[in-house]
Amino acid sequence: MKFEDFRSIFQPRSVAVIGASNDASKFGGQYYFALRARAYSGKLFAVNPKVPDIDGVPTYMRMQDIPDEVEFAVVAVPAAHVVQAIADCAEKRVRVVEILTAGFGESGTPEGARWENEIIEIARRNGTRIIGPNCFGVYSPESALTLLPGIDFPKEGGPVGILSQSGGVTSFLMRKAIGLGVRFSKVISYGNGCDLNEIDFLSYFEADEQTKIVVAYLEGVSDGKRLLELVKKTTLKKPVIIWKGGLSKMGSRAVASHTASLGGKKEIWDGFFRQTGAIPAVGTDDLLDMMIGFGCLPGFQGRRVSVVGGGGAITVAAADALDQVGLSIPEFSVKTQQAIRACLPPTGNSVKNPIDVGTPVYLPHILKPVLEAAASDSAVEAVIVEQWVSNYMPVFVEELADVIPSVKKSSGKPFIATMPEPSASSETIEIEDTRRKYREHYLRHGIPVFDTLQRAATTLGRIVRYNEFVKERQA
Amino acid sequence: MKFEDFRSIFQPRSVAVIGASNDASKFGGQYYFALRARAYSGKLFAVNPKVPDIDGVPTYMRMQDIPDEVEFAVVAVPAAHVVQAIADCAEKRVRVVEILTAGFGESGTPEGARWENEIIEIARRNGTRIIGPNCFGVYSPESALTLLPGIDFPKEGGPVGILSQSGGVTSFLMRKAIGLGVRFSKVISYGNGCDLNEIDFLSYFEADEQTKIVVAYLEGVSDGKRLLELVKKTTLKKPVIIWKGGLSKMGSRAVASHTASLGGKKEIWDGFFRQTGAIPAVGTDDLLDMMIGFGCLPGFQGRRVSVVGGGGAITVAAADALDQVGLSIPEFSVKTQQAIRACLPPTGNSVKNPIDVGTPVYLPHILKPVLEAAASDSAVEAVIVEQWVSNYMPVFVEELADVIPSVKKSSGKPFIATMPEPSASSETIEIEDTRRKYREHYLRHGIPVFDTLQRAATTLGRIVRYNEFVKERQA
Repeated sequence: MKFEDFRSIFQPRSVAVIGASNDASKFGGQYYFALRARAYSGKLFAVNPKVPDIDGVPTYMRMQDIPDEVEFAVVAVPAAHVVQAIADCAEKRVRVVEILTAGFGESGTPEGARWENEIIEIARRNGTRIIGPNCFGVYSPESALTLLPGIDFPKEGGPVGILSQSGGVTSFLMRKAIGLGVRFSKVISYGNGCDLNEIDFLSYFEADEQTKIVVAYLEGVSDGKRLLELVKKTTLKKPVIIWKGGLSKMGSRAVASHTASLGGKKEIWDGFFRQTGAIPAVGTDDLLDMMIGFGCLPGFQGRRVSVVGGGGAITVAAADALDQVGLSIPEFSVKTQQAIRACLPPTGNSVKNPIDVGTPVYLPHILKPVLEAAASDSAVEAVIVEQWVSNYMPVFVEELADVIPSVKKSSGKPFIATMPEPSASSETIEIEDTRRKYREHYLRHGIPVFDTLQRAATTLGRIVRYNEFVKERQA
Repeated sequence: MKFEDFRSIFQPRSVAVIGASNDASKFGGQYYFALRARAYSGKLFAVNPKVPDIDGVPTYMRMQDIPDEVEFAVVAVPAAHVVQAIADCAEKRVRVVEILTAGFGESGTPEGARWENEIIEIARRNGTRIIGPNCFGVYSPESALTLLPGIDFPKEGGPVGILSQSGGVTSFLMRKAIGLGVRFSKVISYGNGCDLNEIDFLSYFEADEQTKIVVAYLEGVSDGKRLLELVKKTTLKKPVIIWKGGLSKMGSRAVASHTASLGGKKEIWDGFFRQTGAIPAVGTDDLLDMMIGFGCLPGFQGRRVSVVGGGGAITVAAADALDQVGLSIPEFSVKTQQAIRACLPPTGNSVKNPIDVGTPVYLPHILKPVLEAAASDSAVEAVIVEQWVSNYMPVFVEELADVIPSVKKSSGKPFIATMPEPSASSETIEIEDTRRKYREHYLRHGIPVFDTLQRAATTLGRIVRYNEFVKERQA
């Protein structure tokens, strides 16, 4: 599909919901009400022969009864009625149809496979394009379109574009990412991908200037060679982070009954990542770390970092974790060590890099000059600060929260925060609340926050490698 | 040290705190008040020449003034006065001295190293044993002894024994573990380990019947060969989980300035884990997963599991993760598939193993018969259930919470729950609160809970391998 034709998907002038109903627990009702609640500004039509009106707004018996053009249609009728709905859409010259309904190729039944083939045939014959079936659809903040069940997904956009074969992964990822300050250009859950698939959506993201970071959850691939060329081209412009599901033998079997795809072999995908410079990730937390990391530090290339912690083991763990990803902790100059020594008690700490300030309870007037000294050392390209929010400092202290952002600003060097979850009990939920407030504060200031040093190291390592990969390829 | 002599550490009849003060922000004051608050039942003495009384209780000028025997002493005076304090303890025939103070071998200063040598010499000459210096001490629920700063650590004991060179790791780990239902037999933070070290504490745990699971954070090792033999012997009786810090070049340097130890080489440690059957872990979350896993499923040997999720991608992720650790997801019998089919709508789900019930919003009357069918299949040795606590079910529903425990009980097969953190924002903290309530409920019923499928798989894989290792060695 051509770039300009994606307008029909991300900014359609009119939308029809086939299978809209008054029952918000069903996909059709849920979707229709979500569009209305989000104040979709184009023309919105509801099609349902069994219901005369939805919440007072009259419905249409059939697509053909709509007295206006329909650019984009959403199908949420039972599987047995989807073929007819697609035929109606084709007759109505709908540009793109999004099929939420499941029960096609992935079901393993003969009729499911037959229906899916019929859909493809009708669509090809009439030039109608299909998203799905068996998907959650498209989220596009600029048009108020939303994927299931995202009535409350944000209206403002951002740099991350997601394409995913799984609706569950998509909505889980979005919901958690939003709480981490991540915003999206467009998000597409495309399920079985019987027509439009990863090639189309990746091509779009490659060209789309709003999208600065591409995130993909893939189960199967329609054309491996084209994908390779496409990703190779895309990574020169923006990072492409891919969670490839179904790489194991058992996973491959699960893929077949989830989205009717072929899983693929691990060795082949290892080569794919090496050749394309795409960033491999596994699991939603890993993808979220990448969104935060690439979002806050897109061009980061610093291999020499300083680490600041409140305890000796943190410095050991940081050194081990950073070493593993090829980052180093350079020695400070004598001047830097003296400057840090002047801030700390004579024992129970370490003024060498990594710095152990000796206590996990940070005092702003001590932490600030320590960070300033670390950041000012010419050998240091970035500073990682591990902060424990615990029962010893259970409330959000603004003066402390402002230390990292202010030294980041004055030094001009990147800062990274790690904040492990210190409590697991429901009785100490207020500590977690405080941790989240610090995290939100740092993220608002462009400081990436990770749960653990290990995850921070993994993320930084991948960003540095990606940027070096691009540099080498461009040279 | 002989097993029976450890009584002086874990159940001393009398304790003196040298450097006790009225200032609870200092180690000496903190420790003294903690012992009093925890109602230590032996004789408790405070030694401080500068303070006549602490909170009304008279202090002693010197150890020698105490008109009674002292079995265990805690030293929290400045580093320059520690040698004298140890000499006083030796004269007083104190059995064991715990030195909280830092500023010795780890400081890198000549006097620090000299003091540490003097301490060792005095102790050896007089038969006084030393824990530390530069440590947080000993927690022993049966005597109310506690390590810093654990005034509020639980009074009831449990199966996990911890030995750790890092006080920070120890207290962080304990605090989080407590919220995950983990309880401890004894916990020892031993810092520089200048006298009693990992060999002594591991020997104790090997013999201690209260300790069913041994967890260690090690930076350096005093005698590699003895450690290997000791761990080999211990793993035949109970799992030994070790986080070895400082295995990288940089980490090794950090280890030197943290606890004055030698880090060691990764290759040697890989061989160590292979030969001994000890379980390698990295980071606090990994250690916590092992405590939960081995605590709930000590003898688990099931390699064939069923996975139940509310979404197709979960089943793919589970298959990939389990495959990686050598566990399998066997096919169900036709009978099982039919039984599950009878519970679910005709499409949008999968009745094969892994089961996709089609929606992450679980209804108790559907989930229960699905789990019963899965658990009743003769090919299945355990069932993993992924549960999403989200804004679609933001409150704790008792009927739902009881499904897994009840099917676990009726089927007699082990259940494992995975509950990913679904929200990251402080505005949705109530969802996290609900998640924790479910987790606490499951843990109370002996059902291990992990954040992600990947972490559940890692843990199960290690438990199975450990139990197979023991079986082979015993054969």
